[in-house]
Amino acid sequence: MAEQRIRSGLVGELSAEFAGTLILILFGCGVVAQVSAGGALTDPAGGLGDHDSIAWAWGLGVTLGVYVAARLSGAHLNPAVTVALAAFKGFPWRKVAPYALAQTAGAFVAALLVRWNYSEALAKADPGHTIKTQGVFSTLPGNGNPALPVHEWGAFRDQVIGTAILLLLILAVTDLLNTPPGANLGPFITGLIVVAIGMAWGTNAGYAINPARDFGPRLASFFTGYGGAWRDQYGNLYFWVPIIAPLIGGLLGAGLYKVFIGRYLPSGETEPPGRIPASKD
Amino acid sequence: MAEQRIRSGLVGELSAEFAGTLILILFGCGVVAQVSAGGALTDPAGGLGDHDSIAWAWGLGVTLGVYVAARLSGAHLNPAVTVALAAFKGFPWRKVAPYALAQTAGAFVAALLVRWNYSEALAKADPGHTIKTQGVFSTLPGNGNPALPVHEWGAFRDQVIGTAILLLLILAVTDLLNTPPGANLGPFITGLIVVAIGMAWGTNAGYAINPARDFGPRLASFFTGYGGAWRDQYGNLYFWVPIIAPLIGGLLGAGLYKVFIGRYLPSGETEPPGRIPASKD
Amino acid sequence: MAEQRIRSGLVGELSAEFAGTLILILFGCGVVAQVSAGGALTDPAGGLGDHDSIAWAWGLGVTLGVYVAARLSGAHLNPAVTVALAAFKGFPWRKVAPYALAQTAGAFVAALLVRWNYSEALAKADPGHTIKTQGVFSTLPGNGNPALPVHEWGAFRDQVIGTAILLLLILAVTDLLNTPPGANLGPFITGLIVVAIGMAWGTNAGYAINPARDFGPRLASFFTGYGGAWRDQYGNLYFWVPIIAPLIGGLLGAGLYKVFIGRYLPSGETEPPGRIPASKD
Amino acid sequence: MAEQRIRSGLVGELSAEFAGTLILILFGCGVVAQVSAGGALTDPAGGLGDHDSIAWAWGLGVTLGVYVAARLSGAHLNPAVTVALAAFKGFPWRKVAPYALAQTAGAFVAALLVRWNYSEALAKADPGHTIKTQGVFSTLPGNGNPALPVHEWGAFRDQVIGTAILLLLILAVTDLLNTPPGANLGPFITGLIVVAIGMAWGTNAGYAINPARDFGPRLASFFTGYGGAWRDQYGNLYFWVPIIAPLIGGLLGAGLYKVFIGRYLPSGETEPPGRIPASKD
Repeated sequence: MAEQRIRSGLVGELSAEFAGTLILILFGCGVVAQVSAGGALTDPAGGLGDHDSIAWAWGLGVTLGVYVAARLSGAHLNPAVTVALAAFKGFPWRKVAPYALAQTAGAFVAALLVRWNYSEALAKADPGHTIKTQGVFSTLPGNGNPALPVHEWGAFRDQVIGTAILLLLILAVTDLLNTPPGANLGPFITGLIVVAIGMAWGTNAGYAINPARDFGPRLASFFTGYGGAWRDQYGNLYFWVPIIAPLIGGLLGAGLYKVFIGRYLPSGETEPPGRIPASKD
Repeated sequence: MAEQRIRSGLVGELSAEFAGTLILILFGCGVVAQVSAGGALTDPAGGLGDHDSIAWAWGLGVTLGVYVAARLSGAHLNPAVTVALAAFKGFPWRKVAPYALAQTAGAFVAALLVRWNYSEALAKADPGHTIKTQGVFSTLPGNGNPALPVHEWGAFRDQVIGTAILLLLILAVTDLLNTPPGANLGPFITGLIVVAIGMAWGTNAGYAINPARDFGPRLASFFTGYGGAWRDQYGNLYFWVPIIAPLIGGLLGAGLYKVFIGRYLPSGETEPPGRIPASKD
Repeated sequence: MAEQRIRSGLVGELSAEFAGTLILILFGCGVVAQVSAGGALTDPAGGLGDHDSIAWAWGLGVTLGVYVAARLSGAHLNPAVTVALAAFKGFPWRKVAPYALAQTAGAFVAALLVRWNYSEALAKADPGHTIKTQGVFSTLPGNGNPALPVHEWGAFRDQVIGTAILLLLILAVTDLLNTPPGANLGPFITGLIVVAIGMAWGTNAGYAINPARDFGPRLASFFTGYGGAWRDQYGNLYFWVPIIAPLIGGLLGAGLYKVFIGRYLPSGETEPPGRIPASKD
Repeated sequence: MAEQRIRSGLVGELSAEFAGTLILILFGCGVVAQVSAGGALTDPAGGLGDHDSIAWAWGLGVTLGVYVAARLSGAHLNPAVTVALAAFKGFPWRKVAPYALAQTAGAFVAALLVRWNYSEALAKADPGHTIKTQGVFSTLPGNGNPALPVHEWGAFRDQVIGTAILLLLILAVTDLLNTPPGANLGPFITGLIVVAIGMAWGTNAGYAINPARDFGPRLASFFTGYGGAWRDQYGNLYFWVPIIAPLIGGLLGAGLYKVFIGRYLPSGETEPPGRIPASKD
């Protein structure tokens, strides 16, 4: 989506990254709050959603966040995307840190809004603000499930693979030399990537696949009563896993796209002239 | 969507707002009737839908209602949208009251049709027409769930935030200077906004986010046997919350779009001439 | 969709209506077989689908059946659509009976294929081929649920309203003077209409909303062991309800589209010349 | 999608088939692992997905795999597609074996990645690596359900029909003489075909409908501890069913498309010149 960026100055770009990531997390942390906190209070057979709605709302949050930010900033909404685009698509390295900061700030503010709006439900479902509802904000190995013996390195492996899938696909569906969706529907398809990752790669580490998505809300939860935010259910420091692993995985996935697909595509010069504008709309 | 309005006279516009909101509520109140009244009569493990189908059918109702009305009226279908477009996008203030009235009338008639069609199911599931099935028509704090300690001001806060999200996103996906969906698929993406809000922001107040959606059906239920329609499960007058809060939230969200995104976008004059028509289709 | 019909002769049109309705019913009766017969054999908490998958697969069956037939026949796939288009959109009356016959034949053959493929599951779940699995093929008042006191006239009312919604919306999303979806995605949106009807208007009569969809499979079930196919759970003759009511409802809905929307739209002569082709793609 | 193939040499085509099928299986085997292995460890009422998420994630895997490969290879991702396109659409027969090999290799590697990432969950849910979790990788008659009396020939019949539906529809939605989806959204609609097949034709044989999808992961499971990979729950050799039946079914479905639709469509020469490019985008 980097190609749609226009000259609006870095302030506009950062404002867009802030707002787009805010939208993403308003839906992402919102749906987990609704299902886990709100749902736990209702009858178990018919709560206000389930894992399916979690997968869909996170993906739709991506779609809608991208529509908010795409024109101004390219709508990365994820430091793992920003770093991979810098490494492989010529995004300026000097903008990487500001983008990552704006993304994390948007995620932080959105998580505070979720925390505020769901304060009654969270207080009722988990009065001590413990690990029981930590998952509303940040991820845990095995989603905190004690029956699933996944620890930080299993989660690390999972996050490298999951983010590699994400970046390989983002490069595929935004590459004008490939066959990207037209009619400005790239954001819709990009959201479907995250729907599918949530359905298939969400068991071991809650599919953060985005350092800003995890760290911003984790910080927000820590500031609002979740003293154990930095550790997992085994007492180990965990917050670094969904930061480091996605950055590595994103680079890996973008590189694999180049290896398997990108290097075989024709360069722009040999394209028929009508194709690129047609693909853009 | 206001840009697609054509010269058909105010009567055509109001007819379109009436029909579009009618469609929205036929699906919206219909799905809640199916899940809560119809479903309560079947075995609990496999009813005729669940919260996921509620979220999808409300969103698809928006999509389809917008396709009905878009050309004639711009398909607001929601007084909170109409007021925000008047305040921020130049929609004529003199049309705000007629639009809101037509929207409410469409919602009222649709709710009567749902009331009629589901009369057997409602009579069986809730013979006294009490608060137990009031939620088929109008919203309640915490969806009437006694385990969730949300009262009118928690619901008010929730409706301000939820409608702010709605309007921020509606402005984003209909702004020709941003990157809106093409191929006349804006109504589809607009429906997905409401799917996602239902999944992530439906716990505290049933995501009315639309005064006509709530007041029209509430009135229809009151006229057809629901004597307690104006109050919540705590006995407090509640009907004003999903009217006032969405109007405030809509203005807030539209304003935030301007602050974070709109003011950084290039004005129309500096656009390449080919872009606007391409985005329109 | 009638506008996309080309000169291929009536044989090609009927072949397309046959194949398109066959696809619709392969998915429609298929998903009910999977959920009700297949699912009944597995553990109740995690069968092979639920009412949500029923609603989605029926809608996707419409989408895919329309893609099969649209170019040759306009993809009515439903006698209620054919009759309404004849009454309101100039479709030739002399073709109505052949179209309805081809649609019913396609539905009949598809139901035989479902009957054959699910023969082991149906024999196990319902050895006597009774009303218990009749719903795989044809509809019943209240979906056969004894707890829901809906009889044939309640189902009749429901089918009139449901098919009116269907036709009002089909006319809306295929009217080039309105704002139909572009990029040949009308079939996708048309499928979403049926998804939403299944979620919100499926309680009282199983949303046949299509005489061919109901009568063809009912006949197939009758010929393959379902002796009680013509009657409902109360012993009343029922097969006529999902034939007559949808025909009436379709006319009503198409008429209401004209009343609320169509008469306010500009006629083709006053359209800007670039618009119609753009809307077609 | 064969029409979008460009001159990149066979190596690029095979690399694309490898990568596209890899993506398909990363989501496909991934979601079954999440639901069956991961879900079995959590509380039964709210696992990490259900049959609905299985159907959606397989379909989205198709969509995303096709976006990866479409430009370079036409994105068959399935030997049954490759063989049918060779028989009916002029795809070169000499490329059929290399394509099938690349597809199977991609599926094999993807299944190894799923096997690795879900190793803890699989070891916990099924320490002996038995038929209990064999379904994560390859299909079984009746999905291994002992209550459903479907054996290899029932599964064979099911796979012939299911793959016939798949190929009939793939030819329909990619035929430029018909009404295919525009704006490069064919891959999205193609994914929806597989969503619908999963919902309606997944009971008897787990809807492999793709020899590479089944054989590649089956081999991967055999190499990593699943000694019983080649047999079904009755002890019969089964691996050949989801290889042979889809190849037959694909030819059947492609032939039926020609019989019912293709032969009635106008040939390219009689097309209005503006149509084909418009349909391509």
